[in-house]
Amino acid sequence: MLDQLRGDVLKANIELSKRGLAKATFGNASAIDRSSGMVVIKPSGVPYDTMTAADMVITDLSGKVIEGALRPSSDLATHIELYRAFKEIGGVVHTHSHFATAWAQSLHEIPCLGTTHADHFRGAVPLTDPLSDEEIASDYEKNTGLAIVRAFDDIDPMEMPAVLVASHASFVWGATASDAVETADILEEVARMAYHALTLDPGAEQISDALLDRHFLRKHGAKATYGQRS
Amino acid sequence: MLDQLRGDVLKANIELSKRGLAKATFGNASAIDRSSGMVVIKPSGVPYDTMTAADMVITDLSGKVIEGALRPSSDLATHIELYRAFKEIGGVVHTHSHFATAWAQSLHEIPCLGTTHADHFRGAVPLTDPLSDEEIASDYEKNTGLAIVRAFDDIDPMEMPAVLVASHASFVWGATASDAVETADILEEVARMAYHALTLDPGAEQISDALLDRHFLRKHGAKATYGQRS
Amino acid sequence: MLDQLRGDVLKANIELSKRGLAKATFGNASAIDRSSGMVVIKPSGVPYDTMTAADMVITDLSGKVIEGALRPSSDLATHIELYRAFKEIGGVVHTHSHFATAWAQSLHEIPCLGTTHADHFRGAVPLTDPLSDEEIASDYEKNTGLAIVRAFDDIDPMEMPAVLVASHASFVWGATASDAVETADILEEVARMAYHALTLDPGAEQISDALLDRHFLRKHGAKATYGQRS
Amino acid sequence: MLDQLRGDVLKANIELSKRGLAKATFGNASAIDRSSGMVVIKPSGVPYDTMTAADMVITDLSGKVIEGALRPSSDLATHIELYRAFKEIGGVVHTHSHFATAWAQSLHEIPCLGTTHADHFRGAVPLTDPLSDEEIASDYEKNTGLAIVRAFDDIDPMEMPAVLVASHASFVWGATASDAVETADILEEVARMAYHALTLDPGAEQISDALLDRHFLRKHGAKATYGQRS
Repeated sequence: MLDQLRGDVLKANIELSKRGLAKATFGNASAIDRSSGMVVIKPSGVPYDTMTAADMVITDLSGKVIEGALRPSSDLATHIELYRAFKEIGGVVHTHSHFATAWAQSLHEIPCLGTTHADHFRGAVPLTDPLSDEEIASDYEKNTGLAIVRAFDDIDPMEMPAVLVASHASFVWGATASDAVETADILEEVARMAYHALTLDPGAEQISDALLDRHFLRKHGAKATYGQRS
Repeated sequence: MLDQLRGDVLKANIELSKRGLAKATFGNASAIDRSSGMVVIKPSGVPYDTMTAADMVITDLSGKVIEGALRPSSDLATHIELYRAFKEIGGVVHTHSHFATAWAQSLHEIPCLGTTHADHFRGAVPLTDPLSDEEIASDYEKNTGLAIVRAFDDIDPMEMPAVLVASHASFVWGATASDAVETADILEEVARMAYHALTLDPGAEQISDALLDRHFLRKHGAKATYGQRS
Repeated sequence: MLDQLRGDVLKANIELSKRGLAKATFGNASAIDRSSGMVVIKPSGVPYDTMTAADMVITDLSGKVIEGALRPSSDLATHIELYRAFKEIGGVVHTHSHFATAWAQSLHEIPCLGTTHADHFRGAVPLTDPLSDEEIASDYEKNTGLAIVRAFDDIDPMEMPAVLVASHASFVWGATASDAVETADILEEVARMAYHALTLDPGAEQISDALLDRHFLRKHGAKATYGQRS
Repeated sequence: MLDQLRGDVLKANIELSKRGLAKATFGNASAIDRSSGMVVIKPSGVPYDTMTAADMVITDLSGKVIEGALRPSSDLATHIELYRAFKEIGGVVHTHSHFATAWAQSLHEIPCLGTTHADHFRGAVPLTDPLSDEEIASDYEKNTGLAIVRAFDDIDPMEMPAVLVASHASFVWGATASDAVETADILEEVARMAYHALTLDPGAEQISDALLDRHFLRKHGAKATYGQRS
């Protein structure tokens, strides 16, 4: 099981780079084996083109390295908070993808301006509160995770599989690392569309709940009609 | 005849992906055989890189599947309304191409700001009215088609082969599925040019009727002088 | 001589497409043999990927076809006016390259905001006056050429090898068709830079004459110091 | 040693072109051998695809050519001022990369709006003062270098390895030419992100010193925790 996760996590990390979502080494993907509570994550600062499955680092949910010769991604503690709080997710991706990051830097959530957005995210993609100086000074990565979890107090993470960390960038999740990569790719496109729609008309408003639900539920949940899964 | 249409529709769908007009599975192309009234359309949610001609679904103009093991694109009912209302068209394409979608999200038609636009579309590319909650709740895709048809009350669909569906994206058509793909590609470029012209100068205005007609009629209709078709 | 020009013009047209300056068939390049007064130009509406040197059309300076089975580019009459008025030029290129066209659609000249611009164009890239309805109704392409020439009343076309035609797109020229392609490529980048600088700060102003001349003359004229040509 | 530097400088110049940071011949990289005081730099105006290591020009710190048949880059004198003032740097890169140049043309420094920026630059990327007409008229390239050095009066060039020259473009440096190329690539992305964040919300503000230092020092200096360098 962990061997397969190692391969999945390697592939997800490489895919981030291939799709242009993670320039240089800005980005990382992880997955969790829920039965054992083991997390598989990218090592810190290793170039995508030389990484192998054996370089993946395995830790437990306290962040202790269980297997692997390299240091884990410096964002490990954020991933772990997400796995602890969001019990249904199996993979997490962090990227500095361009337009999602621009939104995070502008300190605005991404409003739901159209059906491309509604097909994947049930409402505006939320923005965390900024961290205080104290939260930054100690356990910064863990506190980033806690800020994300706080932003989801009344949001279902399975209906909103992404967040913007204020002044930083996005975290995205899903059933698997590969699903999280796919969603990160769509988040970037949705962020870019909302940028262009809003700079064209700053008064553009969110779509109606009726249209939002019609699209979101066409692709998600028990009554989904999209695709070949019936 | 249907065998050839199946190949044409497959090719048109693949071309949408290759030209960057349809990210992931956001997009679909169809064609109609006017003699039999049969519509050939992409199956729902199948990745472009594994689709074959045999996967294409054949339906009649009531939307009933006549041939094909897969479910048709969830946008089938919209395509059908277009084929029913616009008798001269042979192919329809729906994409969430980036800039056309940004315009649809901003709820503005695309004004005709230059000759690149006028070479292909005789005037502003129209925007549908938003659907009411009732129209969204039942027969959503069919109602989308009806909203498009209403927007063409006094517009000739052969002189304006594209529309923006409010808060959604574009539908584009032509004599064949392949023509519709070509027009979808040009619509995206025209939408992107108008975005950049208008953000540079929000006061930019539509071109004169004289210039619009000069360019449109240079490429279309009985007196066309462009190309080698004399 | 004409055989070589045919090859040069073919190559220039293909290069326009390869560099992304001419989408679909939006663009054309020509060259002139000054000794014979013969103009070699792209045929109208022929796709770039199937064009051969033999498809190039040869005309005289009145626009009469001397050699070639195909119809010349519909913009031929504009090219001819440029060759007649600007005696030192040997090649002309017309493209709808994206950002230069957005400027033409916004009806603004491209201000000289930096040294990238000044290295290639001695001042703002001018914009023609709009054509009147009468000028559009008859001899449209020739009148487009005359409007360009009028815009250069007090500008040296060798120091300003490009123009924006109002609501249309750019024409660019040079000693050869190949030089004109190179300049068209740089014009597009300069237009894109000016777009981003001005949308960042709408108050951005043109550079000083001292800086403009320092850069322009570093690369052009008798005292040029750039490159290996000393 | 100089042979290796020649290879490094060639490679850095080619990399600038490959990464899309230097269109046409707009860009140059150099390196210095601190033991001998010899500078290796790209020749002026030679296309990237035909340059060889033997074409690199070697000069001393007064700008006198010591080895090489070709003329050095016209920006040599600027590189030399940087090597003279910033004793710890080993490589310098000058590019007209798109968004960094747009910022230079808008005459604004690049504010630090997020952690992508803070990971690499400790604060806003500074902008030089404009050169006076006298500074432009004589020793222009040397005066450009002096203007950069003046902008670093109270900035550590190892914590801020980049600058915008007013109305011109960026200069970037590092321990080696290759490091400078990497930083030039990241500068371009950071400039593009700041453009999009600020055009989305012109009121976007710089991040707190706490967040800036947390990120910058995670990757730089004695207490760095990023990567595998422990």
